[in-house]
Amino acid sequence: MRRLFLWLLLLSGLAAKAQNEDSVFIRQIADDVLSKGKAYDNLRILCKTVGARLSGSAGMYKAEAWGEQTLKAMGADKVYTQECMVPHWVRGGKDEALLTYKNEQGKQTKMSLDILALGNSLGAGKKGINAPLILINNYEELEKQKDNIKGKIVFYNYPFNPTYINTFKAYSESGAYRRSGPSRAAKYGAVGVVIRSMSESTDNNPHTGATSYDSAYPKIPCAAMGLKDADLLSALLKKGVQAELFLKTNAYFLPDTIGHNIVGELTGTVFPDEIITVGGHLDSWDPAEGAHDDGAGIVHSIEVLRVLKALGYKPKRTIRVVLFANEENGLRGGMKYAALAKEKSEKHIFALESDDGGFTPRGFGFTCDNEKFQKAKQWLPLFAPYHVFEFDEGGGGADIGPLARMGVPIAGFVPDAQRYFDYHHARNDVFENVNKRELELGALNIAALIYLVDKYGF
Amino acid sequence: MRRLFLWLLLLSGLAAKAQNEDSVFIRQIADDVLSKGKAYDNLRILCKTVGARLSGSAGMYKAEAWGEQTLKAMGADKVYTQECMVPHWVRGGKDEALLTYKNEQGKQTKMSLDILALGNSLGAGKKGINAPLILINNYEELEKQKDNIKGKIVFYNYPFNPTYINTFKAYSESGAYRRSGPSRAAKYGAVGVVIRSMSESTDNNPHTGATSYDSAYPKIPCAAMGLKDADLLSALLKKGVQAELFLKTNAYFLPDTIGHNIVGELTGTVFPDEIITVGGHLDSWDPAEGAHDDGAGIVHSIEVLRVLKALGYKPKRTIRVVLFANEENGLRGGMKYAALAKEKSEKHIFALESDDGGFTPRGFGFTCDNEKFQKAKQWLPLFAPYHVFEFDEGGGGADIGPLARMGVPIAGFVPDAQRYFDYHHARNDVFENVNKRELELGALNIAALIYLVDKYGF
Repeated sequence: MRRLFLWLLLLSGLAAKAQNEDSVFIRQIADDVLSKGKAYDNLRILCKTVGARLSGSAGMYKAEAWGEQTLKAMGADKVYTQECMVPHWVRGGKDEALLTYKNEQGKQTKMSLDILALGNSLGAGKKGINAPLILINNYEELEKQKDNIKGKIVFYNYPFNPTYINTFKAYSESGAYRRSGPSRAAKYGAVGVVIRSMSESTDNNPHTGATSYDSAYPKIPCAAMGLKDADLLSALLKKGVQAELFLKTNAYFLPDTIGHNIVGELTGTVFPDEIITVGGHLDSWDPAEGAHDDGAGIVHSIEVLRVLKALGYKPKRTIRVVLFANEENGLRGGMKYAALAKEKSEKHIFALESDDGGFTPRGFGFTCDNEKFQKAKQWLPLFAPYHVFEFDEGGGGADIGPLARMGVPIAGFVPDAQRYFDYHHARNDVFENVNKRELELGALNIAALIYLVDKYGF
Repeated sequence: MRRLFLWLLLLSGLAAKAQNEDSVFIRQIADDVLSKGKAYDNLRILCKTVGARLSGSAGMYKAEAWGEQTLKAMGADKVYTQECMVPHWVRGGKDEALLTYKNEQGKQTKMSLDILALGNSLGAGKKGINAPLILINNYEELEKQKDNIKGKIVFYNYPFNPTYINTFKAYSESGAYRRSGPSRAAKYGAVGVVIRSMSESTDNNPHTGATSYDSAYPKIPCAAMGLKDADLLSALLKKGVQAELFLKTNAYFLPDTIGHNIVGELTGTVFPDEIITVGGHLDSWDPAEGAHDDGAGIVHSIEVLRVLKALGYKPKRTIRVVLFANEENGLRGGMKYAALAKEKSEKHIFALESDDGGFTPRGFGFTCDNEKFQKAKQWLPLFAPYHVFEFDEGGGGADIGPLARMGVPIAGFVPDAQRYFDYHHARNDVFENVNKRELELGALNIAALIYLVDKYGF
């Protein structure tokens, strides 16, 4: 017994020593990122010299070149690309919506709404369309009103629930109207759809994002409007005012084109065949700079590589930074990455994505077996000095979803996303709306987790 | 034993039931604040119709009237004021700083610096002053250079340490140069002082704030500059460039004048003599709208009263919302409040201040005995659904400091203050830089804590 006791004591002593070493090294990571970090400057360059970078656009190619060059400059041992075919959706011009109604004095009134066509939608034709509007607050109402939809433009006004503390829950709920709303309305003969943006912002910016047509129904034009316009329109229609909307969107698809995942590695010194992936997506919607979505994730991931290299850390395993192609409207990059991993029988021990914005870190969400989750949980005290207290079950990222489905344990970076949907897919998702310290705090916590996974395996 | 066991079981069952009731009521608070709250709208009105409200200014009187009116409108049983004399410092005009130096080509170069005179400082006289500049990075350097200071303008360039995760620690350290820097330089014959602002912001806004003259030395003019100007000036002086600064500040004191704490109460229904104070400070520096500092604390406190009233909650104890006068450059309101409490032998069981901005809540800091702190800690799980995990020892607020010194247990609201010093005392501390959800989340967590203190005592 005594021997066992001494042995346990020794073990716990070793564990304490290791924790202390880790705490010291993570402090070095923090100091370096916060005082000499490149995340913010890299984001500035990505946003201001590349800007919007939707799949297939000229911006995508500029972003890919920037990514390769930046990974090299930040010290990657190896930089390469993975080719994949990506969709090439084009907005095709300014989206227009002109509302016509009789005001309370019976006077014909016209009002322009600020809209953005939904991603992957098709345009309204050269002349646009003109049709009466019908207010539909949710899918239950749609079903009740199904005989009353034909020839109309459906206005979905489903609110972003402000009482959910987790804004992603509100997004997931209201997002249904963006994703499937057009086809569900087309099923009943609607000729167009406009939606309330998935946001609780106090401005009037419309928020785009991908829709998905059901091939069984006509692919009708569809667009999002900002919250002020949505409130105004909803109030008008609730009063029973007859309103018509002229809707002109211009979007179309060009043939699929070649895009690339951009990959940079720090080669493992002990187990080079064991791969740890950390990434974000390089593409972004066209109306802005994709600063939070997902410029932040891109520069977070690159910063992990930079800081480990700068501190002279020799990873045991191969740390692979991946700037994924085409998350927004196709996920082709993530699927290609997983397919290649399978084809080459690569051993992926962990993958992490940052795609929830460059805000103050709150924690990580893990999708893995319970044993691994408990292992991660043991590291949580190391994050307390950085005010990170949440290691939760569930989470990851769209781009690493295909890897997870192959059994790879994954995690998602969880920042404080209260402001995220103020900017998400809207024209104000620009560099100026990312805070330097908040961005850097994210990077250092991600780097700390990658360091622990590398050191102890997963 | 068996009886004791059953009794314990019953007690723990009762405790669980109470926790569940509390959790349900706190959820009601949250839903109400997030969907029907007035904090954001109240802040808009305070910022946009009152604006800056430094003690003694016309803004102060407007703010006081707004405070009384708003507390009534939000449902206070009783609204009254507490008179106190406040200092009346006046900026007196545009602060000017013109740098003159020979550039690398030997050409005389002039450059205007963007400055703000420090609060409570005295102006540089009608003609301003003109003197050579000396770069002083910290007080150690000042002591080494003490024979080299006479007749010069000292430029303190002490950095805001970016490696501190807690930004208030960096503020506290660098703040020493704002508070005592002018007199310490005057001691060695300096004729003026300019300082690097206490901030890590990426813009060039100067940040003002109170300085404190030591009456043993001349009261020399002093001002803060933004970080870009400070970096530029520091680089120039480090190169050994001889530079002169023309400094013109215009500040002066008028005689003390009458200000007021504004108080609104929900009267206790069981122990009306037991008082729970929740407050912020109504005054703000002159260059902006005092949105985070401390408009947020003001509307947080008012929202506590509003939501409890709106939900029909009958407090056991008297909940007293206090909009304190003159925190920024005198603390006269806080001192008056404590003096009156003593004079009237009031029984204050708890006081809470919100004065760290309207950002996402992280927790509360308590200054009280350990028994009370442990009692508060037991409530922490009730805050987890709102992502609040930090109940720490130490904390409070300047205005309730005098109460604490009388033995009253106090706490400070702790938001995520990574962005706080981007705005603090600078011209960008405006309504637009406060996020609606983050502000509301703060209000609901403060209301939850006040509810628990009221229900269970403290």
